[in-house]
Amino acid sequence: MIAQQIIEKKRDGHELSSDELTRFMDGYMSGVVTEYQMSSFLMAVVFRGLGPSELGCLVECMIHSGQTLDPEGDKTPRVDKHSTGGVGDKVSLVLAPLAAELGLVVPMMSGRGLGHTGGTLDKLEAIPGFRTDLTLVEFSDVLRTNGCAMIGQTEEIAPLDKRLYALRSVTATVSSIPLIAASIMSKKLSESLSGLVLDVKVGRGGFLPQEDDAEALARTMVDIGAEYDVATVAVLTGMDNPLGRTIGNALEVREAVDCLSGAGPSDLREVVIELAAEMAVVGGVAGAVPEARLLAGRRLDDGRAMERFERMVRSQGGDESVLHAPDRMGVAPETATVTADRDGFLSGFDPRILGHAVVELGGGRTALGQNIDARVGFELHVAAGSPISTGQPVGTVHAADADGMAVGVARLLAAAEVTPEPPPPAPVIRDRIA
Amino acid sequence: MIAQQIIEKKRDGHELSSDELTRFMDGYMSGVVTEYQMSSFLMAVVFRGLGPSELGCLVECMIHSGQTLDPEGDKTPRVDKHSTGGVGDKVSLVLAPLAAELGLVVPMMSGRGLGHTGGTLDKLEAIPGFRTDLTLVEFSDVLRTNGCAMIGQTEEIAPLDKRLYALRSVTATVSSIPLIAASIMSKKLSESLSGLVLDVKVGRGGFLPQEDDAEALARTMVDIGAEYDVATVAVLTGMDNPLGRTIGNALEVREAVDCLSGAGPSDLREVVIELAAEMAVVGGVAGAVPEARLLAGRRLDDGRAMERFERMVRSQGGDESVLHAPDRMGVAPETATVTADRDGFLSGFDPRILGHAVVELGGGRTALGQNIDARVGFELHVAAGSPISTGQPVGTVHAADADGMAVGVARLLAAAEVTPEPPPPAPVIRDRIA
Repeated sequence: MIAQQIIEKKRDGHELSSDELTRFMDGYMSGVVTEYQMSSFLMAVVFRGLGPSELGCLVECMIHSGQTLDPEGDKTPRVDKHSTGGVGDKVSLVLAPLAAELGLVVPMMSGRGLGHTGGTLDKLEAIPGFRTDLTLVEFSDVLRTNGCAMIGQTEEIAPLDKRLYALRSVTATVSSIPLIAASIMSKKLSESLSGLVLDVKVGRGGFLPQEDDAEALARTMVDIGAEYDVATVAVLTGMDNPLGRTIGNALEVREAVDCLSGAGPSDLREVVIELAAEMAVVGGVAGAVPEARLLAGRRLDDGRAMERFERMVRSQGGDESVLHAPDRMGVAPETATVTADRDGFLSGFDPRILGHAVVELGGGRTALGQNIDARVGFELHVAAGSPISTGQPVGTVHAADADGMAVGVARLLAAAEVTPEPPPPAPVIRDRIA
Repeated sequence: MIAQQIIEKKRDGHELSSDELTRFMDGYMSGVVTEYQMSSFLMAVVFRGLGPSELGCLVECMIHSGQTLDPEGDKTPRVDKHSTGGVGDKVSLVLAPLAAELGLVVPMMSGRGLGHTGGTLDKLEAIPGFRTDLTLVEFSDVLRTNGCAMIGQTEEIAPLDKRLYALRSVTATVSSIPLIAASIMSKKLSESLSGLVLDVKVGRGGFLPQEDDAEALARTMVDIGAEYDVATVAVLTGMDNPLGRTIGNALEVREAVDCLSGAGPSDLREVVIELAAEMAVVGGVAGAVPEARLLAGRRLDDGRAMERFERMVRSQGGDESVLHAPDRMGVAPETATVTADRDGFLSGFDPRILGHAVVELGGGRTALGQNIDARVGFELHVAAGSPISTGQPVGTVHAADADGMAVGVARLLAAAEVTPEPPPPAPVIRDRIA
């Protein structure tokens, strides 16, 4: 194989054979194809895309570059969820134990914060002792005893994807729908799933703000799932505003616990129940989404999902007592509440501003491996779309120090949009692609 | 500077400021920007191109990454020629001494064979002892005493271009008109020229076979020259067939000597005289091209250009006696002549087939640093377009051994095109862009 001929073929818009693409990817893993050849190839893919058979081949190469999870004879349906990432998105923390409670095994591999979006692993690590770096053996143990477990991508799973992802992030080759889809699906298909539900965020706070792009990504991933006989459904959910009322790791764990206790903000509960119901259906433990929704709601209200979450936290080394005494996760030393300076409607909170602000406050990373402060973030006191009057509390900033507070207040003021008229209603569940 | 933001900006089709592009290129030279970031940037340039000010900035970065030649107070007009490369193109060997004879200083930096095209350095090195690796001090000495000298690109000249060129050749990012133009012009503009003539090959044997592309490249380079106040003219010359009647290093030196002696094939002489006349005009030693053509022809016929070439060969360590006893450059042990198997017209010789065949015979490289056999190649006995009859010699293969001979004969038969009707006439001088 001459690497540059394969790059050239993609550059010129020709379709690569499975043999060519496989040799190129295998060559990359073995060192024959260099990083600089792969990065020019990836940029050519940004411009030219990948055809369906090229995409299937890439996913296959990624899966086979590593190990796949072994269900060890367990016949319980295995279903996972993936979110394309948003602001205030603590859905996974509620959903994994809830879906397990509905009769599924949920082997959830999550990520860290990226750009303005938060990461499930960072949220879980706000719980003292919680280990997201279980070995695959430990992960299987927790799954077997508890039905759900939550870890990061391990070295053994799809190492080709891991290397490509790292390379893409520094070569401006992230924004390619087939590359995004292959990356997500290779990890999920390595979990030996029977079903998969995708939460594809649409709206200004999403990873792909354009609804067309989000839809195209959803369709691409659903098609890949179908190729692998994994029942796959994508739910498009709104991300024009943060999900729920908190942004910041410890604050989001609190809110997840509220939701697991049958309370919490309604948009969060609605997304959780919708995704849980879809998971139950693709996993074959429920016949239809409407009945599954009802059951999911019941499992939040009766405390069983919460108990499952507590067991999972304990199994993964976390101190589950903090779930009932959340101040023990740490309280930001500085808090200040911003109030409305006029009457009108709180038509929205710009999620990108608040997401980036959490990073500025120390609650996210600007470089790999940085420590983060789980205590900082924002509480929003008003749901987007609500009427608001002068002097009414809009939100509270949680900061580590006075400098952070100054930044946080400025960002909250910039993010909160007050208008004389109410905004058009925006449903949180937008569309469904199966 | 965040490298990926600059790559992203180019990827998305926005114009980079000079500051951004300069920092990116300087970062590459200092190691802050990695090879894999540069290669994804280059692929983005393949798709998006470079605007005029970006291109000017890139050329500037390339020139300033190294040294420029110092004319050391010599006021004689300095003029060089660059060819985009062809098959059988031995023009430089004749042109450099001829232009010097017309009153110019010709500091010629040339290249090696690449793909199907031959390289001037490889041809010169068929002359025993000839050194193409002079230091810049030695180069200046030969230039001062002889008016012309011919070397390869040194480490000191445009090292950024040298690194980018090596990276492009292995990442399928060669085929970009602005990148090609910047590479060529940065080297030439480092020679502190007063004028420059570009021989842009058009036709199936050229580096850019499409006439539109060749024209666009010519225009781009002429514009860059104008920016630098270097009088620049591009001549588009035909490369649908090999130039002259020989392909292969030692065979081409023989033919160059024939041309320098006032003989040799008419297409070669025509291109040499045209380019010499343009060089004389851009250098200001002739008023107009027609009169300069006459003078150039005279200098070939009266032997003065040949004497100049002999002096240059001697100054650069070469054994000039071989120019009059060319067998002393070595004779291929195997020769065989192919004859026509029918009557008709020898409408052409496919230059790509013959160019690649010389490499197969050992007369070119498939990897950097390989030794090459100067003796091998092809002599063509018929000019493209001539009538031919059964049994008439078409060409002679010069090979190192019987295996090479088998390949050479097969390739010559594949390259020679015999048709019942004559081909349309194809002038060798196609167009002129100034």
